[in-house]
Amino acid sequence: MAGNSFGEIFTITTFGESHGEAIGVIIDGCPPNLELDMEFIQSELDKRKPGQSKITTQRKESDTFSILSGVMDGKTTGTPIMILIPNEDQRSKDYSHIRDKYRPSHADYTYQMKYGIRDYRGGGRSSARETAARVAAGAIAKLLLKQYNIEIFGHVSAVGSIEAPNLDSDIIPELIKVRESNPVRCADPATAKEMERFISEIKKDGDTVGGRVSTIIQGVPVGLGEPVFDKLHAELGKAMLSINAVHGFEYGSGFEGSKMRGSEHNDIFINPQHSCDSLRTLTNFSGGIQGGISNGMDITFNVAFKPVATIMKKQKTIDDQGNEVDIVGKGRHDPCVVPRAVIIVEAMAALVIADQLLRNKVYQ
Amino acid sequence: MAGNSFGEIFTITTFGESHGEAIGVIIDGCPPNLELDMEFIQSELDKRKPGQSKITTQRKESDTFSILSGVMDGKTTGTPIMILIPNEDQRSKDYSHIRDKYRPSHADYTYQMKYGIRDYRGGGRSSARETAARVAAGAIAKLLLKQYNIEIFGHVSAVGSIEAPNLDSDIIPELIKVRESNPVRCADPATAKEMERFISEIKKDGDTVGGRVSTIIQGVPVGLGEPVFDKLHAELGKAMLSINAVHGFEYGSGFEGSKMRGSEHNDIFINPQHSCDSLRTLTNFSGGIQGGISNGMDITFNVAFKPVATIMKKQKTIDDQGNEVDIVGKGRHDPCVVPRAVIIVEAMAALVIADQLLRNKVYQ
Amino acid sequence: MAGNSFGEIFTITTFGESHGEAIGVIIDGCPPNLELDMEFIQSELDKRKPGQSKITTQRKESDTFSILSGVMDGKTTGTPIMILIPNEDQRSKDYSHIRDKYRPSHADYTYQMKYGIRDYRGGGRSSARETAARVAAGAIAKLLLKQYNIEIFGHVSAVGSIEAPNLDSDIIPELIKVRESNPVRCADPATAKEMERFISEIKKDGDTVGGRVSTIIQGVPVGLGEPVFDKLHAELGKAMLSINAVHGFEYGSGFEGSKMRGSEHNDIFINPQHSCDSLRTLTNFSGGIQGGISNGMDITFNVAFKPVATIMKKQKTIDDQGNEVDIVGKGRHDPCVVPRAVIIVEAMAALVIADQLLRNKVYQ
Amino acid sequence: MAGNSFGEIFTITTFGESHGEAIGVIIDGCPPNLELDMEFIQSELDKRKPGQSKITTQRKESDTFSILSGVMDGKTTGTPIMILIPNEDQRSKDYSHIRDKYRPSHADYTYQMKYGIRDYRGGGRSSARETAARVAAGAIAKLLLKQYNIEIFGHVSAVGSIEAPNLDSDIIPELIKVRESNPVRCADPATAKEMERFISEIKKDGDTVGGRVSTIIQGVPVGLGEPVFDKLHAELGKAMLSINAVHGFEYGSGFEGSKMRGSEHNDIFINPQHSCDSLRTLTNFSGGIQGGISNGMDITFNVAFKPVATIMKKQKTIDDQGNEVDIVGKGRHDPCVVPRAVIIVEAMAALVIADQLLRNKVYQ
Repeated sequence: MAGNSFGEIFTITTFGESHGEAIGVIIDGCPPNLELDMEFIQSELDKRKPGQSKITTQRKESDTFSILSGVMDGKTTGTPIMILIPNEDQRSKDYSHIRDKYRPSHADYTYQMKYGIRDYRGGGRSSARETAARVAAGAIAKLLLKQYNIEIFGHVSAVGSIEAPNLDSDIIPELIKVRESNPVRCADPATAKEMERFISEIKKDGDTVGGRVSTIIQGVPVGLGEPVFDKLHAELGKAMLSINAVHGFEYGSGFEGSKMRGSEHNDIFINPQHSCDSLRTLTNFSGGIQGGISNGMDITFNVAFKPVATIMKKQKTIDDQGNEVDIVGKGRHDPCVVPRAVIIVEAMAALVIADQLLRNKVYQ
Repeated sequence: MAGNSFGEIFTITTFGESHGEAIGVIIDGCPPNLELDMEFIQSELDKRKPGQSKITTQRKESDTFSILSGVMDGKTTGTPIMILIPNEDQRSKDYSHIRDKYRPSHADYTYQMKYGIRDYRGGGRSSARETAARVAAGAIAKLLLKQYNIEIFGHVSAVGSIEAPNLDSDIIPELIKVRESNPVRCADPATAKEMERFISEIKKDGDTVGGRVSTIIQGVPVGLGEPVFDKLHAELGKAMLSINAVHGFEYGSGFEGSKMRGSEHNDIFINPQHSCDSLRTLTNFSGGIQGGISNGMDITFNVAFKPVATIMKKQKTIDDQGNEVDIVGKGRHDPCVVPRAVIIVEAMAALVIADQLLRNKVYQ
Repeated sequence: MAGNSFGEIFTITTFGESHGEAIGVIIDGCPPNLELDMEFIQSELDKRKPGQSKITTQRKESDTFSILSGVMDGKTTGTPIMILIPNEDQRSKDYSHIRDKYRPSHADYTYQMKYGIRDYRGGGRSSARETAARVAAGAIAKLLLKQYNIEIFGHVSAVGSIEAPNLDSDIIPELIKVRESNPVRCADPATAKEMERFISEIKKDGDTVGGRVSTIIQGVPVGLGEPVFDKLHAELGKAMLSINAVHGFEYGSGFEGSKMRGSEHNDIFINPQHSCDSLRTLTNFSGGIQGGISNGMDITFNVAFKPVATIMKKQKTIDDQGNEVDIVGKGRHDPCVVPRAVIIVEAMAALVIADQLLRNKVYQ
Repeated sequence: MAGNSFGEIFTITTFGESHGEAIGVIIDGCPPNLELDMEFIQSELDKRKPGQSKITTQRKESDTFSILSGVMDGKTTGTPIMILIPNEDQRSKDYSHIRDKYRPSHADYTYQMKYGIRDYRGGGRSSARETAARVAAGAIAKLLLKQYNIEIFGHVSAVGSIEAPNLDSDIIPELIKVRESNPVRCADPATAKEMERFISEIKKDGDTVGGRVSTIIQGVPVGLGEPVFDKLHAELGKAMLSINAVHGFEYGSGFEGSKMRGSEHNDIFINPQHSCDSLRTLTNFSGGIQGGISNGMDITFNVAFKPVATIMKKQKTIDDQGNEVDIVGKGRHDPCVVPRAVIIVEAMAALVIADQLLRNKVYQ
């Protein structure tokens, strides 16, 4: 009820604060007998961890995880899987200057007002550090999805006003290779360079900038999604909007689709395999989802991230006594979150698809 | 678990098919002693009902509701409230021609594949007729919110590429008056005329068009929203994405915000009332929500609707034997859903806010 | 969250008051393509309905149901099934004398204090009339279980201090025949006669008496139940304790088992079919459940019902002004609930097993 | 959905196996600003921990806990509280002899069949070691309840056929003192001696015996409980039945009440304080609950525990190849669980009352 759990069957509950002893997650409902590739899980955490490149925060966290339950001889047992990720580089003193100030566009004021108390160190629970737990759980969801040949690919499609061109391939392993060859995680090397240069400038300026992550999910079978409220895209949307700094979600044709006519927008069915179980559509404005249920086509969606609120410039704000005060960002922060957010988006997508896959088993 | 319930404390469960005997809803968790203004509830249903004007579907439904439980002497008793809305104008024979055809960009194929059976009459459960039940429940949520001086205003801000200018008032009763003076439900009379003309043309053409609904919620106290997953905007997003034909959701600065810099985007706190309990911000790119929790400013969001899939033109499709066939839309359909969708958006927003308001009581 | 729903996957939500317009239930999560035997559903309702014999209440309700959604051509479609049962014989004026009095051992006082308002007519929501909705939903659960060859048999094993002997058969259809041959629903005809005589005396005396329902469930596969909290017997226990007037639940050896030694109580495994998938045990003190998971043996449990609180004798009580007043039962009431409760116990058992059966599919 | 969470608002999710690295729990929904008395939490764990006396298992676990999140400066912050309890004395090799054998009346067979894999070491997840996590969470629930002057007292009222007399006091701190003065946790010193002697004999004999825990809860306000399914006693019943080895639950008059007449059983209201907000009843056969809602009287219930299944005698059983084999208990086990179970019963009761207390806030 308090909102720290996600998923109905493949359920995660995360815990932990930015500068507490540890963060982590319990996965309840992971099917038994799933072999856990520990190196894969770590590699996912590595893609999210801070300090990866010059354009990310310099906080140093190895994000080394341990699994304390639910696994025997490398296999899941069907009981709750507890993953622990200790915090290593908590410089809490970095935050003493904001103990009694409400940072603009941060969660300081709202947490204080809601709970009457807040862990001010590094944003406490509202810090994006919590998403490491999601990435660990998402890695296990991905391992489950691999057994069903479902693959997820997220990439940075915009930084500020710099837009990447459309994907020029639909082979996910190839796309990942390109994406991981640049620190921005853009699937187009030329645009990546431009984005990197722009982020570096922004950073030098003590400023931050927003961006967009686009995602494609391949191999989702027909039938996932639970109308009328738990439609597949509604669950994906909630999952994405629950990620720190996200301000928008659209799937398939999205906001652009609202300008189109039905005669252009309708995805015409074809039957290349001569079997009703595997219809395809000529276009995919539906983003792989019709009536809230997957139709077997690629699932596509975009996620908009606002610029990070912590900037290294002086701003006016209010303290907890109601006085006007100045504030300058300290601590270690990202000038642009999207390069690391790609992995968080993928993780949340994996969690949604795994959950819906298991929910759909009830009908079989 | 099957996805026909929404909300954790103010919980609704809807039922019913487009051409069955009735649709309706159970509200479980509505606080007791709430006086129900039955005329208000009917007036909300009237705003959603078909046949309101020349630019909406001509299906004739009075959408007269009755409440069968949970109310005594006009007041809620704290027990489940069951609202029944009979279907009156089911012309099921209109649909015999699509019994075995999968309409493009409809839910026919996905429902058939998921459940192995489907009520093909009027789209069955996937029809937007189900949203009448949401509007009835939403009306009761609005009555609850009125006691807290919370008001919701939705309006059509775009039809196709026609965009309405920004609101020129923030007095909701006035805005409603303007909006209800035109069949498009646009808050700008001049743009409304243009939109109406455009929809009429589209209709004459046998085609359909998408649009956008924008919403503002006033009077929400600081503190609503349950991080880290049930953030206020994540719940709003899921609610909106669960509405038929919705393809996108953004709040505050939304997708545009992802192009901005932190120094522009940050909402600077001010303290006009000299009390920490009621800080305001100079700008509102946060859309009234910081860290997933309401901050006392107006909550603002946009919802993108795709064009209606049923068009009165010949299209190619596949039948349930896998054959290529032609299909022409019959039945009675809207050329553009946004004028009626405004009320559905408001209803879902009211349900989210009422639910979060009650969830937040636990901390008090 | 308000407690009117039960079940995680095969979920029911009931509504309605004793003297309102109707009671009913939504089933969400019933698998599609289940053929509904409407006569069977009605026959189940008939076994619970009032006025069946001289030893039950004389309220006249036909308990005729209609299904308003979720079914097409007699088959479930996977969408919510709404079952409506109108109230026919509401003599609300019978209750005007208790409008302002708190009947002893009734829910009048607690409902008034919790909600600040109550429907005093016939006990409103706290009336056992609500259980008709459970029986209708339970009938559909039974139809689902039939497909898995799971059968449930409840019977009256005690009325006051009169105890029935152990079952002398384990063939459920035969047992049902014997049980239905007497108005007490005891599986032993001689004891049934004695019980009937006793209840008639009690009734003549204006008094009431408690009793016990015993249940056996056959054909449950190994594996149902979700430790550590949703153990099969924990769910059965909650289900039974949620029935009006129930004061106790025990399974397998129950309270008697707490007096035994481990060496007597342990159920020794045998392997008559030479397959590990179908072990049996020599004894069944475990009641078919080990570690909260069904083991393939018969599931057995007992449910204790207190005597009905409404008696036709003068009692002292307090009115809503705090004054001492006299009260005499009016209305139409059962002198002993167990004969009708048998069907309610079976219905709730069917709902639990159906729900756990579907929950267990996730692992397959 | 997998059953490792309990509670709707004060929600716990436990994890961990008997011989894994650690067990623990996340509490989500604990109100903020609750001061945590760490010594109290440890003292509760100490009452449950093994090795307390000669009549409990000799496994050595200090059950030292640490809290890794959700607390700042000794106070809860409203975010998830993660409590970790490392396993120290795992002698997994004790269990190699049962790796491929199904112990009678244990969960070995059912876990293996349900999940297709099981952690055989010490019973894995099915071990009562998991209840240490419940006791830690229950201790925090008790700290919350103290603020509302709600107190819980459990005690051993029967071991085998030895029954303790009724409580001769209703002052809980005094009762606790007496109870803690003997290793059986019986509230009557003379009976305690007899029980202790009996358990020692049973132990010498390599056997085990069942028992009963009785509980009284004082200070519960009128109004807790959520009809019709989440009645207060239904939630208490589920909570108790979820504890290892529990076979029965009854509240108020319980099974004995089913033999009584209404005229004896009805609890007559009185009004000693001349205020309708605080009626009392002359008797308390209702066990403090009417219509599923607390009525302000003491809440009373009994819990029946079967004898521990692991005995130090040779028994026949079946191995995972289907062969008949002999088995003799090894490892370290309790001859009778009730002395330690008292604390687990109290913890689960505290969790239920805390949860219902918070659920009830919604109406205020």
